[in-house]
Amino acid sequence: MIPLPLEQLIKELASLPGVGKRSAQRVALHMLQNPECMKALEGKMQAVAQEVKTCTKCANIGLDDPCHICTSVTRDKTRICVVEGVDDLWAIERSGAFTGMYHVLGGVVDAMQGVGPNDLNMDNLVSRACSDSVDEVILALGASVAGQTTAHIIKGRLKDAGVNLTVLARGMPMGADVDYLDEGTISLALQGRQAV
Amino acid sequence: MIPLPLEQLIKELASLPGVGKRSAQRVALHMLQNPECMKALEGKMQAVAQEVKTCTKCANIGLDDPCHICTSVTRDKTRICVVEGVDDLWAIERSGAFTGMYHVLGGVVDAMQGVGPNDLNMDNLVSRACSDSVDEVILALGASVAGQTTAHIIKGRLKDAGVNLTVLARGMPMGADVDYLDEGTISLALQGRQAV
Repeated sequence: MIPLPLEQLIKELASLPGVGKRSAQRVALHMLQNPECMKALEGKMQAVAQEVKTCTKCANIGLDDPCHICTSVTRDKTRICVVEGVDDLWAIERSGAFTGMYHVLGGVVDAMQGVGPNDLNMDNLVSRACSDSVDEVILALGASVAGQTTAHIIKGRLKDAGVNLTVLARGMPMGADVDYLDEGTISLALQGRQAV
Repeated sequence: MIPLPLEQLIKELASLPGVGKRSAQRVALHMLQNPECMKALEGKMQAVAQEVKTCTKCANIGLDDPCHICTSVTRDKTRICVVEGVDDLWAIERSGAFTGMYHVLGGVVDAMQGVGPNDLNMDNLVSRACSDSVDEVILALGASVAGQTTAHIIKGRLKDAGVNLTVLARGMPMGADVDYLDEGTISLALQGRQAV
């Protein structure tokens, strides 16, 4: 009933993260009715494939390798912030609260998904942390079991590196109501309470 | 912070229906990390652009024009089911409950969106309905204000066509609980109650 090429396009779109079968169908029909949108998308994808590089030092992405953060002369080279993905790096940069360097792991250790420490950009982190200039490694990983497991593994790997290892504070997010917080967050926020 | 080509790809993806800025970002990063996925998508889009045609008779899409439904010798040519879009046609075909012909309007009249009767595939419907072989035109439009407005306009246009004009029944969907139904559906289901 659905023409085969369209069916295949829907399948391809539905394989993208966060895109379900119904959205894929909607997008495919939109593309069919707006060929100029399809052309534009193709052009943008080709530009990304050709121009965007992964930084061999920190695994951030950018137009240059090493990336603009690694080559910056104004950023604090004594601190490395470890993130799961480039989108986490972007979120931290948007906050403007960090002026050091980054290290993108490319995921977290997750036995359920078959991701082990060797599938991540970890050896590189160890050698960076061991360099003389680095004082602190900040783990900005997700507050999930996989994130905590990964933090634990990194702690083991860095124990001889002579750096301070820190993690992001756990507690109430801005704007939160106490009665909407889950028990885990409440108990972490209580444990980490601070003098006012 | 986000490299320009990637930023542009994210913008392009976010312009697709049902794709928000965050999903677009996620999809773009996935594409960057899986160039083969980007290549495959490009190929599928090109195939769709080249091979999929719109039927000049009913505006269904397919590999041929007229489409396989219009040229079928086994389907009931006395009934035309009017739908908003091709996805509605697919949904009705999946139900297996209709063996007649279709007519795809390409939308509904919606003053808020600036869509008038002349923006739709309506003249074609009138001339099809006026042909001798057609007995019934079934309006399978959405149960929204825009759908009802469109039905009303079609009714006006077809008043001299000598066809029976019907709409889909309104009532409880399969599996529904009465206490979860909205007041409008409950009152339509009561009005349309049937002997058991």
